Amino acid sequence: MATIKDVAKLAGVGLGTASRVINKSGYVSEVTKKKVLDAIEQLGYIPNETARAFVTQDSKIVALFLPSIHHAFFSELAFHIEDELDKHGYNMMLCNSSGQIEKELKYINMLKQNKVSGIIGISYNSIGNELNNSMPIVLVDRHIGENIPYVSSDNYDGGQLAFQVLKDTGCINVAYIGTFSKTVITEVEKRRKGFEDAAKENGTNCTLYIEEDPIKDETAFLTTFLQVYKDIDGVFVENDIMALKLVQLAIEHNINIPEELSVIGYDGIETYSALRPRLSSIRQPIELMGRSLVELVLKRINGVQVEPVIHPVVLFKGDTTL
Amino acid sequence: MATIKDVAKLAGVGLGTASRVINKSGYVSEVTKKKVLDAIEQLGYIPNETARAFVTQDSKIVALFLPSIHHAFFSELAFHIEDELDKHGYNMMLCNSSGQIEKELKYINMLKQNKVSGIIGISYNSIGNELNNSMPIVLVDRHIGENIPYVSSDNYDGGQLAFQVLKDTGCINVAYIGTFSKTVITEVEKRRKGFEDAAKENGTNCTLYIEEDPIKDETAFLTTFLQVYKDIDGVFVENDIMALKLVQLAIEHNINIPEELSVIGYDGIETYSALRPRLSSIRQPIELMGRSLVELVLKRINGVQVEPVIHPVVLFKGDTTL
Repeated sequence: MATIKDVAKLAGVGLGTASRVINKSGYVSEVTKKKVLDAIEQLGYIPNETARAFVTQDSKIVALFLPSIHHAFFSELAFHIEDELDKHGYNMMLCNSSGQIEKELKYINMLKQNKVSGIIGISYNSIGNELNNSMPIVLVDRHIGENIPYVSSDNYDGGQLAFQVLKDTGCINVAYIGTFSKTVITEVEKRRKGFEDAAKENGTNCTLYIEEDPIKDETAFLTTFLQVYKDIDGVFVENDIMALKLVQLAIEHNINIPEELSVIGYDGIETYSALRPRLSSIRQPIELMGRSLVELVLKRINGVQVEPVIHPVVLFKGDTTL
Repeated sequence: MATIKDVAKLAGVGLGTASRVINKSGYVSEVTKKKVLDAIEQLGYIPNETARAFVTQDSKIVALFLPSIHHAFFSELAFHIEDELDKHGYNMMLCNSSGQIEKELKYINMLKQNKVSGIIGISYNSIGNELNNSMPIVLVDRHIGENIPYVSSDNYDGGQLAFQVLKDTGCINVAYIGTFSKTVITEVEKRRKGFEDAAKENGTNCTLYIEEDPIKDETAFLTTFLQVYKDIDGVFVENDIMALKLVQLAIEHNINIPEELSVIGYDGIETYSALRPRLSSIRQPIELMGRSLVELVLKRINGVQVEPVIHPVVLFKGDTTL
């Protein structure tokens, strides 16, 4: 976290001058004042009194930013976060960032101005420079910056578990289907790594069928897989929605599920629990994750340091594995 | 809307006394003051200065309360509402009321205290007495109170359209499947009424298969229908989720869809658009409804009177009708 010394150094002024600008006491020329204010903005410097205000001027609002609530995993998570915040007397402000960095920055500014008391967020943008670890921010899954706490499920373990289930039900030629990102390392990739490592350790042939995120035509991507990789008997798909789509396309192509092809997803979304065939899936404990996120952000609002929380996953045995 | 005269009358005091209490000027005994304040609360009276404050002390926050964001229709609606509010420089506070009246009343109080500038909401509770038509509140579907504006889709017309589609594809023995409420008249019942009226007008046999909301065991409810009403060849189900469940249960019971049984839902939820068979459904224009709700609530925040908006529906032809 930037100190007043950093501000003075960057502005090219003495400590006393920087202090006069920050405390609005004594004369400073407009030119010098601007230099100091620019340095404050550039460094994201928060004076002690503002830091104290995080505690005393608690707006009782926590902002949640999500790539899109339009996705069942996120809307279920939002439901549990709002429920838990409400129990603690906090309101939730919702921001669908849809990948727009300006929208995320708007909320970070609101945090700096005490209009919101804390932020829970998933971000795929490079906003690390805008954050510092004194801010009450807790992330879902992604690690941005060194010391910003986060909550995730044990994605690596989930990948290993997915392989174990396929192996135990007799699969001998498996594949991972999903996406990759050139710019950020996502938790999703740990699912792949866990799966790959487990297959390798077991000496099982494992195909990676991946495309850069976001996939332009998911139906074409999955149909090609079914047409080309006819020998594969078990797949782990990076999320439930894509897995369900694969199951439906396989049924349309008269591929018997799970006899000819076993499918496991990842997420364990309730929204789809009424559908048939029921998807076998590695379940993230969405409710527990929501409650942990709230616990962590409230501790951060009260100035308490916290450690990341990684929740174990479990298999939900549906109809798409033997 | 209550006036200062109504307050004075109910409190049994003169206009001057009521005015002194409201404007906090001049002497009034504690006993009299309490009478006036009680009358203000009972009538939901908002003094002019508070009314003005709605405009001048705009918090730039609109609260959205939903029965549960856990439901795909609501989460899609929330997405579009947040997006439209953001374009107008407003933030959205989200409240999953889950039927808890206390939670809804909390937001209505926040509105009275200017902590939120307006409310968009779906409520199944009897909160009509807490509202008055000077408040910037817009409802989704439900009409609470005489003059609270709302946005809905044309549910009656949707019911008529559903019948027309079944009739045009050769169904001669149709049913409506859904719920009813003993305490409130919901928009959902207009779907049933539209469907029933159209069937009657056409002289088609129409079975009502309904249970009081909420249905305790939806799977049992739908399975019984499939076992008992074997002669029915076309059904209109009150929402997409229940319709999808019926389709899946029918497939499990080896009933050919749509050859033996045509199924139409209502909602047109995007979340399920990847699923197969694709559900035929009467689509509510969710995005347009979200944007209308924002337009109306912003007008109300600025003191402009508005009329309810009813959006036309369209058929989405999927795989579950001929």
